[in-house]
Amino acid sequence: MADSRTLTLNRPLDMHLHLRDDDMLRMVAPHSAAQFAGAVIMPNLVPPVTSGEMLTAYRTRILKVCNGVGEFEPLMTLFFQHYTESQLSAAQPHLFAIKLYPHGVTTNSESGIHSINAAEPTMRLMEEMGIPLLVHGETTGFVMDREREFLTIYERLATRFPRLRIVMEHITTAAAVQLLDRFENLHATVTPHHLVITLDDVAGGLLQPHLFCKPIAKRPEDRDALLAAALAAHPKLMMGSDSAPHPRHAKESCGCAAGVWSAPVLLPRLAELFEKHGALERLQAFVSDNAVRIHGLNIPQRSVKLVREPWTVPAVYAGGELPAVVPWEAGRELPWRVSAA
Amino acid sequence: MADSRTLTLNRPLDMHLHLRDDDMLRMVAPHSAAQFAGAVIMPNLVPPVTSGEMLTAYRTRILKVCNGVGEFEPLMTLFFQHYTESQLSAAQPHLFAIKLYPHGVTTNSESGIHSINAAEPTMRLMEEMGIPLLVHGETTGFVMDREREFLTIYERLATRFPRLRIVMEHITTAAAVQLLDRFENLHATVTPHHLVITLDDVAGGLLQPHLFCKPIAKRPEDRDALLAAALAAHPKLMMGSDSAPHPRHAKESCGCAAGVWSAPVLLPRLAELFEKHGALERLQAFVSDNAVRIHGLNIPQRSVKLVREPWTVPAVYAGGELPAVVPWEAGRELPWRVSAA
Repeated sequence: MADSRTLTLNRPLDMHLHLRDDDMLRMVAPHSAAQFAGAVIMPNLVPPVTSGEMLTAYRTRILKVCNGVGEFEPLMTLFFQHYTESQLSAAQPHLFAIKLYPHGVTTNSESGIHSINAAEPTMRLMEEMGIPLLVHGETTGFVMDREREFLTIYERLATRFPRLRIVMEHITTAAAVQLLDRFENLHATVTPHHLVITLDDVAGGLLQPHLFCKPIAKRPEDRDALLAAALAAHPKLMMGSDSAPHPRHAKESCGCAAGVWSAPVLLPRLAELFEKHGALERLQAFVSDNAVRIHGLNIPQRSVKLVREPWTVPAVYAGGELPAVVPWEAGRELPWRVSAA
Repeated sequence: MADSRTLTLNRPLDMHLHLRDDDMLRMVAPHSAAQFAGAVIMPNLVPPVTSGEMLTAYRTRILKVCNGVGEFEPLMTLFFQHYTESQLSAAQPHLFAIKLYPHGVTTNSESGIHSINAAEPTMRLMEEMGIPLLVHGETTGFVMDREREFLTIYERLATRFPRLRIVMEHITTAAAVQLLDRFENLHATVTPHHLVITLDDVAGGLLQPHLFCKPIAKRPEDRDALLAAALAAHPKLMMGSDSAPHPRHAKESCGCAAGVWSAPVLLPRLAELFEKHGALERLQAFVSDNAVRIHGLNIPQRSVKLVREPWTVPAVYAGGELPAVVPWEAGRELPWRVSAA
């Protein structure tokens, strides 16, 4: 798959992606379609995606703006709430999973759930119907403790619903990595930026709003544990970028919104990282094979080729009337680029 | 000193203040002179204050812009470097203390020291001459650990120089509070904002650049320990605001500078806080008596009166051609105000 100048990835998948809607959707979705054969699309629109109709309509809008970029399969999700069996059946076949947000923990999570107990009937249904549960696993505690505090909830869910496939989304702590090995039905996504940065990069020097995200980047030992698991292609760990665009003015202001827009640089940055650590041959598992195996995905074959040609990440992406968005690694030279071919 | 409607503070002192220079000095210094009988003026200008001449000239500039506001004594500091006895003698009588910055830990600390060992001859001189050592006590480690990691250096300094009066500036951790009781010659300042905020307020919701400072706000248990010590008027703890203005555009942008500009709200906010906790009668010790006793200060008598009349903190202070600066608690209503009388 790789020589020293090229790298071909089969069916790369972004297992956690925010595409937003309207102008922002038009702005950002083609960047994902250019690099990935598919992506898990988060449902936290305003209002959130909570029915089969909304899900199908959103999928259609996504496919429309990606038309011509590359064959791209949006794996659609519903926003967790109480659902009946008929509601879930109506959302299939385009329903991939349901995303659970505790109330108030991140962007557009105001409709999130207040009680995990009250959510159990829907989880029981999901278990029976084979619908994965994707979880934003944070409490509303102190910012550096929120994920760790949530781990007991993951343990309880994994125990109570042994056949429910649970994904701990965008994990950021060594403790979450360790939990992966304790429950067979527990899986995780991790973002490329959490493999690289710590809180030091966000707030250790000057404050860097473009690296501010939720969950917030944690301690060096957390970053190191996440990176080690990714480089080893831990079989229960999948790449999910959590690429989450906000307009530049919403990031560079008082009260900056959480989210790193990493979509334009994901595969090049990962190739650089895995190459640096001598793990390039394990990138395929991290960006695709693990997800295909864990979820039994049937994604159309599509390979994406990277070439070892340096390019400089633009300081900002703006497309005429579309919103200006600052990407992760803005202004930095990356050694790999996605081949247009 | 206090009835339910008024509060009179004798010789209030801000034991850690950044006044900058030029236009920013003109903008911010009158706010301190309006509330305080004196303040310890930090020397981290560009270039830093490193001679008696620079110190005297800076003092003159400060007094000039405060003229007419209120009797205000700037307690001047030199930026720590290697000094000879004759250099230090030349800086007196206006020299109050020397401020030590480890290299590269905060705003304009590029000239800071690289080795504590190499600094010992100057510290020996300071000990002999009775010049206090004020320390920005952070390592260059992980942002949440920097102060805690530095505590062993405080222990070593306090042990090696038992007659040197050492002040741990702007402490932010419970561990630093505990260290106060272990070494007789170790004292501390704490900022009002570190009595109130944690990292949650900076980065737990939306990112708040105007609460971003160094040392960064820490955990709830740290804040609680600082607040308990302040409310108890711990005899070795002094109020030092670390009020540190940056122009609004430098705070609300990518790569926001560290510093909270608290000068306009200090005494009103402290009165509110101490009143809330039933400790209003201990505010005098925290904002003045402790500092006077610790340093044997001879500050001209001046009392500042607060009245219980609500006012709303302006969203931004801007004075014509002077820089616009956003204050701490911008837009919030405070129950106490400084009386103009």
